[in-house]
Amino acid sequence: MFYLIGLGLGDVKDITVKGLEIVKNSKRVYLEAYTSILTVGKEQLEEFYGREIVLADRDTTELNSDVLLDGADVDDVAFLVVGDPLGATTHSDLILRAVQKGIRYQIIHNASIVNAVGCCGLQLYNFDIKMKEQSLENLMRKQNIYEPPRFMSVSQAAQQLIKIIQRRKGEGTESTALLPSTVCVAMARVGADDQKIVVANLRQLTSIDMGTPLHSLVIPGNMHPIELDMLKLFAMDHSIKEQLSVLASASCSH
Amino acid sequence: MFYLIGLGLGDVKDITVKGLEIVKNSKRVYLEAYTSILTVGKEQLEEFYGREIVLADRDTTELNSDVLLDGADVDDVAFLVVGDPLGATTHSDLILRAVQKGIRYQIIHNASIVNAVGCCGLQLYNFDIKMKEQSLENLMRKQNIYEPPRFMSVSQAAQQLIKIIQRRKGEGTESTALLPSTVCVAMARVGADDQKIVVANLRQLTSIDMGTPLHSLVIPGNMHPIELDMLKLFAMDHSIKEQLSVLASASCSH
Repeated sequence: MFYLIGLGLGDVKDITVKGLEIVKNSKRVYLEAYTSILTVGKEQLEEFYGREIVLADRDTTELNSDVLLDGADVDDVAFLVVGDPLGATTHSDLILRAVQKGIRYQIIHNASIVNAVGCCGLQLYNFDIKMKEQSLENLMRKQNIYEPPRFMSVSQAAQQLIKIIQRRKGEGTESTALLPSTVCVAMARVGADDQKIVVANLRQLTSIDMGTPLHSLVIPGNMHPIELDMLKLFAMDHSIKEQLSVLASASCSH
Repeated sequence: MFYLIGLGLGDVKDITVKGLEIVKNSKRVYLEAYTSILTVGKEQLEEFYGREIVLADRDTTELNSDVLLDGADVDDVAFLVVGDPLGATTHSDLILRAVQKGIRYQIIHNASIVNAVGCCGLQLYNFDIKMKEQSLENLMRKQNIYEPPRFMSVSQAAQQLIKIIQRRKGEGTESTALLPSTVCVAMARVGADDQKIVVANLRQLTSIDMGTPLHSLVIPGNMHPIELDMLKLFAMDHSIKEQLSVLASASCSH
């Protein structure tokens, strides 16, 4: 297995318990040394892990990825990245090359500046999970009886969006930014062992069963060719793969 | 110390090593049980930590925060949150109440859906850190000599933005969205022990020294009154605090 492991943003102890176990048991441990900056040195990491670490610079990762991936089909290899392992294009590249070689990979997430920036007090997003809501009747009667938790599913979200598209079409205010044929990303239980990712068009997603909560639905804007290659890994069917290829050639011709 | 500790998105082992140490050493351990959903049960967490956990529902956290914060000025109290501890307004509320009571707090970050969503292959952001760049001369001569790493500072970013504002003013294409008087958030070494947050206007930030890399500069849009209250904690001077109060009353009158 090829593991991409996030180290978080602070010191050696910001690695997760899961990440640390993998580092200790991997045959080789690399540290990505060019898109991020460590607040602690390689030596401190080596001491904390009790493992030797090989620095992987841009040339190694981009031009000699075979060295990194060598033997990862039989042994475990750990590739450490400051923050969260995803974000830099080159790591998608590494994943795509692993998949080409038939090597399985796993992401061990961690904090990155994208969410840790919330420490200044600005809210990262607004959300509305109905965990402990009272019915209007119970609220009026001042009875502390709560409704069962509710979570929106990807298929519910897709159905609602299709309804909005149809209504706006009727009103003559439709947008081409979101159509029933738009390729979207359905995600469920991100970060968990049974995480599920499906790339399909909005119409297909109206009837998809993504399983237990929590679900996420991403409507991408313009995409980079490498993003399109990554999405192909999760395409629902062949026609979606073709749609992504068409988008990729359109993107390259610009 | 009042610790807000992120649990990440997967199972019990997604807590960081630092977070686990704090949980084991805290006098009381709470688990936030209403804005998020656990993929594992409270019992599994208790077994893994070897600690009893008290579930904190919305009523406890919003109406009885004194119970949570009780004694946190002398003992350590841990408040566990699935994902990253920040994002939900109520946690800002908890931090503000801790600060009012003179209780110190610390955030232990972890992955949240905001960054983990990158596992589908979509890029979360584009960045350009100059870690190992060749000069044009060395590139043309094909010499593998690299320039020293460069990182943009908050003051450099603010200076460049002010220049753009001035140029657009000269061209008659200025926008009111960003002015030299706009309140911005300067951040350095987010997640590290010597993390620094300063809220000031863009003009003030042109001459600020935020110390060693990495720096972040946030230009907020419309803000919620609680966001404005949080930013006051990091205000550079009294005039910025007043500016935030004015924005808060404007926001409430809508």
